[in-house]
Amino acid sequence: MDTKLILQHVSRHIQLDNAEKDFFVSLLHTKTLKRKEFLLRQGNICKTENFIIKGCLRTYTIDDNGFEHILMFGVEDWWVGDLYSFLTQSPATYFIDALEETEVLQISKDNLDKLYNRVPKFERFFRIMLQNAFIAQQQRIHQNLSFSAEERYLNFLTKHPHLEQRLTQKQVASYLGITPVFLSMLRKKMARK
Amino acid sequence: MDTKLILQHVSRHIQLDNAEKDFFVSLLHTKTLKRKEFLLRQGNICKTENFIIKGCLRTYTIDDNGFEHILMFGVEDWWVGDLYSFLTQSPATYFIDALEETEVLQISKDNLDKLYNRVPKFERFFRIMLQNAFIAQQQRIHQNLSFSAEERYLNFLTKHPHLEQRLTQKQVASYLGITPVFLSMLRKKMARK
Repeated sequence: MDTKLILQHVSRHIQLDNAEKDFFVSLLHTKTLKRKEFLLRQGNICKTENFIIKGCLRTYTIDDNGFEHILMFGVEDWWVGDLYSFLTQSPATYFIDALEETEVLQISKDNLDKLYNRVPKFERFFRIMLQNAFIAQQQRIHQNLSFSAEERYLNFLTKHPHLEQRLTQKQVASYLGITPVFLSMLRKKMARK
Repeated sequence: MDTKLILQHVSRHIQLDNAEKDFFVSLLHTKTLKRKEFLLRQGNICKTENFIIKGCLRTYTIDDNGFEHILMFGVEDWWVGDLYSFLTQSPATYFIDALEETEVLQISKDNLDKLYNRVPKFERFFRIMLQNAFIAQQQRIHQNLSFSAEERYLNFLTKHPHLEQRLTQKQVASYLGITPVFLSMLRKKMARK
């Protein structure tokens, strides 16, 4: 199991001794996904939180008219999952699938609870992870409410400079809440500047 | 200081002994706001996290055209603040003002850090608070992307059954991302059903 990235990631926020590291790692499982393979389907129970060590995933829903709405992308060094489904072990709201061949490290709810009990420092770690995730989401809501499509697109490029080249135009448009045609117009307009 | 509500609120998630309760309470300050008074202005530093014991607050921005965009309302038993500004002690993105006479209990960043160090159980408490806040926001993003205005309005009424009567039509419309005229049309349409 390739645990180098996740141990580096954790050590940015809490210090673990070797026994704690070993215990943490013993609770993880590796899962490999092919491109287009699902990590989670709407209606199923999200049994694990997932740390991405390689690849790219998207979290999305499909509305009554068959349109996909992308909530977020996840790349290396990010956690993905349907948090509500995971915490309550109830049916998921979201689909999560792989946009590239992807490798994640998974932790189940039981194992995460064990981790909190045995190494309470992880309360702090996930408190910090959730703070960051909350702030990112609040910025997304703020931008959806008050930024133009062009501003949202520019912001997306600035915040995730290497992500666009890993995605299709349709995926970026869905994330921004605009049509691919409109995104294409925006790109041409920006190229002229 | 009226600490009954906040101690009940905390005890839903972690158990504190009397010394821990006393220490926690010693870190809090009361602040009373008149209607329309600001708890925070955009550009100022958010110096405290704020637990509402009475009243109603809104978190919002004002765009370049002077339009207000409401991100959230807060009522009794909720925390409000500009988390990014609070954590980094940098200028706030959001305005927060009181829609009614409001009373909050405030904790400064230094005091919160002291609390985490002396009573690490609060890491767990705020981890759970952030989980709930993250889930609520994710649902809001999901609904903004894929629900109609009518569905968003119905959902708002269901999730916050007593909130609408405390707000103006303009405030509800801003939260939903629609015009007051359109909200009025929705209400008439729903009344006919």
